[in-house]
Amino acid sequence: MVAGMQRLRPVAVRLAQRSCWGARRYSVKAQPSWTAGAGAVTAIAAACAGIGAGFGLWIAQSTERGTAVAAAGASTEPPLGSELARIVVPETIPHVDYESEPKPAYYTDTTRPMHERMEALVLDLQDRLVEALETVERSKRFVRDRWEREDGKGYGISCVLQDGDVLEKAGVNVSVIEGTLTPGQLRSMRERNAQTAQRLGADQEYEFRVAGVSVVVHPRNPYAPTAHKNYRRFEVYRKGHVDAGPVMAWFGGGADLTPAYLFADDARHFHQTLRRACDAHDARYYPRFKAWCDRYFSNEHRGETRGVGGIFFDDLEDKAPEDLFRFVYDAGASFVRAYVPLVARRMATPYTQRERNWQLIRRGRYVEFNLVHDRGTKFGLMTPGARIESILMSLPLAARWEYMNRPEPGSPEEELQRAVRTTADWAA
Amino acid sequence: MVAGMQRLRPVAVRLAQRSCWGARRYSVKAQPSWTAGAGAVTAIAAACAGIGAGFGLWIAQSTERGTAVAAAGASTEPPLGSELARIVVPETIPHVDYESEPKPAYYTDTTRPMHERMEALVLDLQDRLVEALETVERSKRFVRDRWEREDGKGYGISCVLQDGDVLEKAGVNVSVIEGTLTPGQLRSMRERNAQTAQRLGADQEYEFRVAGVSVVVHPRNPYAPTAHKNYRRFEVYRKGHVDAGPVMAWFGGGADLTPAYLFADDARHFHQTLRRACDAHDARYYPRFKAWCDRYFSNEHRGETRGVGGIFFDDLEDKAPEDLFRFVYDAGASFVRAYVPLVARRMATPYTQRERNWQLIRRGRYVEFNLVHDRGTKFGLMTPGARIESILMSLPLAARWEYMNRPEPGSPEEELQRAVRTTADWAA
Repeated sequence: MVAGMQRLRPVAVRLAQRSCWGARRYSVKAQPSWTAGAGAVTAIAAACAGIGAGFGLWIAQSTERGTAVAAAGASTEPPLGSELARIVVPETIPHVDYESEPKPAYYTDTTRPMHERMEALVLDLQDRLVEALETVERSKRFVRDRWEREDGKGYGISCVLQDGDVLEKAGVNVSVIEGTLTPGQLRSMRERNAQTAQRLGADQEYEFRVAGVSVVVHPRNPYAPTAHKNYRRFEVYRKGHVDAGPVMAWFGGGADLTPAYLFADDARHFHQTLRRACDAHDARYYPRFKAWCDRYFSNEHRGETRGVGGIFFDDLEDKAPEDLFRFVYDAGASFVRAYVPLVARRMATPYTQRERNWQLIRRGRYVEFNLVHDRGTKFGLMTPGARIESILMSLPLAARWEYMNRPEPGSPEEELQRAVRTTADWAA
Repeated sequence: MVAGMQRLRPVAVRLAQRSCWGARRYSVKAQPSWTAGAGAVTAIAAACAGIGAGFGLWIAQSTERGTAVAAAGASTEPPLGSELARIVVPETIPHVDYESEPKPAYYTDTTRPMHERMEALVLDLQDRLVEALETVERSKRFVRDRWEREDGKGYGISCVLQDGDVLEKAGVNVSVIEGTLTPGQLRSMRERNAQTAQRLGADQEYEFRVAGVSVVVHPRNPYAPTAHKNYRRFEVYRKGHVDAGPVMAWFGGGADLTPAYLFADDARHFHQTLRRACDAHDARYYPRFKAWCDRYFSNEHRGETRGVGGIFFDDLEDKAPEDLFRFVYDAGASFVRAYVPLVARRMATPYTQRERNWQLIRRGRYVEFNLVHDRGTKFGLMTPGARIESILMSLPLAARWEYMNRPEPGSPEEELQRAVRTTADWAA
């Protein structure tokens, strides 16, 4: 356990502000900081790099990473990662500052129906995130697929990047669908919510419209966390009376972080960024949606959460649609700032087969959650004519199941396992 | 597509009969038959080998394999498989000839309760299969774990082999469990079957006993098929009246084959072997259980069966328990002969990253079936206190999900995909 011992020096990060789409960018200078011990690790030209996210505090905290990596790297295995030599940590991550920049037209145009504005928002969120991710991934670009439903009732745009140097698999999907609610769907909507049951007449047929964006990013580097986000608006109309406006409508969504190795820094940054977006609208939102996320993204059969959480909500209609839309705008926009710097920060960290293996095991758990528990995935798989490729895009490129895998006591793998078996107040 | 072109010469196979546990063995002589073209494939010392299963017809048909392998191998990719050089194709595969050999004591001892005889059978099936599989896998042995339920109501023996040269992951599990049926379990039993509903009193509590063997084998070589088998007996007693014997009891089980590359030969051998075991008891069994298998092992969301099928049945109680037990004995015992020679036949075939990749994608489909559709897995995951490691032992060591993976028209990958989108009469 001594050969190949690795240490990290603190990473120096320089922040700057630049214009991007008329918005602020964060500029980061990466410095090589990985020093090899006795191990033959000279082949790796990559440097550990940090990306500042505009918070001095966050940078100051980042030294803990050194400890974790050193512990994980204290392995006799040779380093992996031929991609590391090719990776260029970006100087800047494009990032619309949703808090201070001028808002797009759809944000303020209250004369347009909400479903059109939601469609504009999810397309906008898709563009921004793809652009930000392509800043960290230089080896290939997202493949953009536009698909239409055969019955003409909707379309989607799938942006997928697979087998990149930085992103092992990433999907950023928009779908805008309409249709008639089936009796089964109506039943399950009524069962979910007594208020809904009252508002939906028993003998009436209903149509729906939904616009949503759905994201999963699985980076290649085992130290870079997986993340998911999903925001959607669902509207229900009396059949044939679409012009009269929806009889009910709600927003749903959230974002969560799934690391294979725990960096408290990263979890705090992710949660604090989401909390700021929530707090700007309602101080009760973050605590409520954080707890909801811990409950929902749970592999109950393992007694584990999927990762270190984030926020999750559904059936949100407790305020005027205008207020909720603005909240969803901010929450959706905050994801780039909450997540992409974490990828940049970890994507060039050297790793060995040990960390890759553990990452694949954790990805197996991700598959378990999505196929066994996730309501959206299960509903999609059972829907005739559904686009399976888009539904299962959330699955990682590779996953692994080892019988009786048990992390060593005191190891960074065990530290992660402990973290997903409890909940912590990461935004404190 | 020309460099590295590979061809296969027909494989010569010599059959002999030897004693093994007082039973017949099949002896096979492997001959190197893989010839490399322009590609730099000299590093691979492995030889293609064939294993006869005692059927001249089967051997005669095996030349088709050459075509399939040549097509798949017509790739520009370098060959993989450092394990191939270490693999020794066995001269013999131990194999109890259940049709002609003397039967064990539990087979004939009708004075013992059926649940004890079933326990003896599943332990016996476990031993025989583990021994047969260790004949093909020389790099490591099965790890045997005995576990007991904390409440003392049952035990299991898990035999697992992981990361072997021949077997990437294999589990042969026995469990013998008893307990009280929960209201939810009783409800689902009543809903499944009107006859059951009549026999189970509404205000009565019931106990159950189940003994079963559950097997999944995922070989490493992409040409060697995955297989599953499962046989169990379930008994229901009025609570506190176990001595009075079961108020109802049934057998369930089956076996199915899941290749990544289709060899019609292998599928025929597997089905014909199972059919012979069925036909010895009831000529209606094989057609009925074959169709049941195709319906059950179905990834409906993909419009695909899991593989090329086999047999499957549940709630079998249409004859005297004695008759059904003898059928289950034969069906269970036939698995070694139906499956293990296929592993031996394919385990030393050279392959490239292309075939490995396709195998991992098909294993992703296996994970989808087990986590989304399989009733046993779903039931297990939702049972508090269940042994998750045993339930999920069926998952492969590695799996892969590529967005929009589409086999090339005319490729061996497409041939497999076509095979799982239709059903064929493999035992004809």
